[in-house]
Amino acid sequence: MLSFTFSHPTELVFGIDSVNQVGELTKNLGKKVLLHYGKASIKKSGLYDVVIKSLTEAGLEVVELGGVQANPIFSLVQEGIELCKSEQIEVVLAVGGGSVMDSAKAIAAGVYVEKDYWSYFMKRGDVQKALPIGVVSTLPATGSETSPSSVITNTEVQHKRSINSKQILPKFAIVDPSYHTTLPAYQTACGISDILSHLIERYFTHTTHVDFTDRLLEASFQTLLINGPLVMMNPQDLNARSEIAFASLVAHNGLLGSGREEDWASHRIEHELSNYYDIAHGAGLAIIMPHWMRYVYKENPARFEQFARRVFKIDLAFDRQEETVLAGIDAYEQFLQDLLLPTTLTEAGILDDRFEEMADNSFVDRGHTVGNFKKLNKADVMNIFRLSK
Amino acid sequence: MLSFTFSHPTELVFGIDSVNQVGELTKNLGKKVLLHYGKASIKKSGLYDVVIKSLTEAGLEVVELGGVQANPIFSLVQEGIELCKSEQIEVVLAVGGGSVMDSAKAIAAGVYVEKDYWSYFMKRGDVQKALPIGVVSTLPATGSETSPSSVITNTEVQHKRSINSKQILPKFAIVDPSYHTTLPAYQTACGISDILSHLIERYFTHTTHVDFTDRLLEASFQTLLINGPLVMMNPQDLNARSEIAFASLVAHNGLLGSGREEDWASHRIEHELSNYYDIAHGAGLAIIMPHWMRYVYKENPARFEQFARRVFKIDLAFDRQEETVLAGIDAYEQFLQDLLLPTTLTEAGILDDRFEEMADNSFVDRGHTVGNFKKLNKADVMNIFRLSK
Repeated sequence: MLSFTFSHPTELVFGIDSVNQVGELTKNLGKKVLLHYGKASIKKSGLYDVVIKSLTEAGLEVVELGGVQANPIFSLVQEGIELCKSEQIEVVLAVGGGSVMDSAKAIAAGVYVEKDYWSYFMKRGDVQKALPIGVVSTLPATGSETSPSSVITNTEVQHKRSINSKQILPKFAIVDPSYHTTLPAYQTACGISDILSHLIERYFTHTTHVDFTDRLLEASFQTLLINGPLVMMNPQDLNARSEIAFASLVAHNGLLGSGREEDWASHRIEHELSNYYDIAHGAGLAIIMPHWMRYVYKENPARFEQFARRVFKIDLAFDRQEETVLAGIDAYEQFLQDLLLPTTLTEAGILDDRFEEMADNSFVDRGHTVGNFKKLNKADVMNIFRLSK
Repeated sequence: MLSFTFSHPTELVFGIDSVNQVGELTKNLGKKVLLHYGKASIKKSGLYDVVIKSLTEAGLEVVELGGVQANPIFSLVQEGIELCKSEQIEVVLAVGGGSVMDSAKAIAAGVYVEKDYWSYFMKRGDVQKALPIGVVSTLPATGSETSPSSVITNTEVQHKRSINSKQILPKFAIVDPSYHTTLPAYQTACGISDILSHLIERYFTHTTHVDFTDRLLEASFQTLLINGPLVMMNPQDLNARSEIAFASLVAHNGLLGSGREEDWASHRIEHELSNYYDIAHGAGLAIIMPHWMRYVYKENPARFEQFARRVFKIDLAFDRQEETVLAGIDAYEQFLQDLLLPTTLTEAGILDDRFEEMADNSFVDRGHTVGNFKKLNKADVMNIFRLSK
């Protein structure tokens, strides 16, 4: 086990009707609120009205900025920053999924950046200050509710990059699973893929003696493998929705990676896919992750064997390690397919071949390798794209 | 699953040599430190010197108060409060196990209580303010490092009670497993029993649809069942020590009980044992817990069956539920015995019968039942003492 630090300063407020607390919680952070959201879905679900009512009852002044899209864009972030400045906003409230939360975080920090804000993203920079942020999460997926990062796409320069700082940790995160039952099946599935990928990025490590976090990760995998299909069969299953929502938060709050070297190559590779193509992050991960697994497993077959045996209960004889490993990866890919996610680029309608361009783009300003389980260079990244065809 | 809130504001600093950071971390909280500790052990292990060096190098002024004993007492807390006032202490630093940490918390809060401080303990009161607290933990057991409670014994009135408040959450908690290798076997075993009991108090619930926390709890049980015997066989096993230390923190930081009704009858029953007799809390729990289990399992046999099957891998045919349940409880008791802990009062040298007096004492100012899995009245508590003979 490696040395680590851990804290979770965000106040997580979880449960049915927890959204009614948004006014009081926001009030603790400031009087004038930027309410940031996406498209029509929060109005359709009734969440918008509930939030406005709670904010108004708490006596808050609300300025709105909607329109966040999947893979949130830097130009809207800039618009939000200007709005915060001109309206003297004191607190940013995100109501939506990972895109809205990430956009809100970027706005909150950007208010204090004097010039060349995008350079912070290109250098994975540490912002020094931010407006306080609250979130009402509508989609269990990115773990952005309690994470210190914000991933933004700059369409002008065609880069998808992140900032990372404790300053952009939300002060509170409301997770009310009753608003998850109206999520479309595809978005639900993409969320499950994203959550699983956060576990996988941490699970595959060369750090030894990580028994406890291994088991916590395996417990999280099991929860998703069991409850994922339940919500796909019955979107109204509030119990299963709650399990997934809770697991999504723990998967990415830092606890499960404590004391371990993490990987994160697949996320970076996927970020180029959703940078270049109109594809959901979770769907991109469903394509990349199993192919990354097949590309890297020989670096540490025992770890992949443990994944197959403990997570997917593959119980072949112990002298059949490679078969066990591959059966585990196949089982993961099959699970994603059963969620009706694409697991090849072709299935996702990505038929051209911009692999070299994407690989090049991924490495701009970021060294020559990515990932830790196997340090992938540009040729490796292109190979994984090719395998994913 | 029930609604819940969760946060973990304490900065956990975990790993070999992490204790060297104590000066810098304390400096962030104040300039004049009360260094609170127990008896000779931190001087013998060399930890005292390392802490003093780090505090001095950080330019801090140190006032010392040693002498905390197992089951920390209110009179020393009062002495600490007076010392803090007369010396104008700004930060309280605990270096030791759960007793030292709890004593430090009680001192830090007591500084701001005008009169009748003990009444807060009798009413499980919420203190409103406290000096900032830092801890260097030397014994993985109580989880006091990241918990909002402090358990203190008042020998004058013979009550062992607690205060609970976010105000007494440590600002930082340093956990350096290299100082765990010198722990005596008995203290190590008591610690493991205490950690397991924190899992058990949360595991046995009637709350349904708690799949995720069930599995996280089971992951934690497994970690202790595997690594506990390893450190008993080889006290120098730093890897196993680290696993136990990390698990001890997660077991009691609030995460694993999120969304579940918890029990806590056994803790309250045990507190009377260690209030009346000179017995370590973990040893008392090793006696009470299996007998509590046998006394209450019929309230929800399926939950005990899950414990037996998932935690202890008892795999009898599924039409043999009661046998499975009892085999699981036996396996837990056997595990404690293998740690060389007492599992009866007789083995602990408690031969007299003050059961009614202890039961009466436990209920003073606290209603007529204790626990949630089965609401135990005074007669039930006496029965559990009797079964534990």
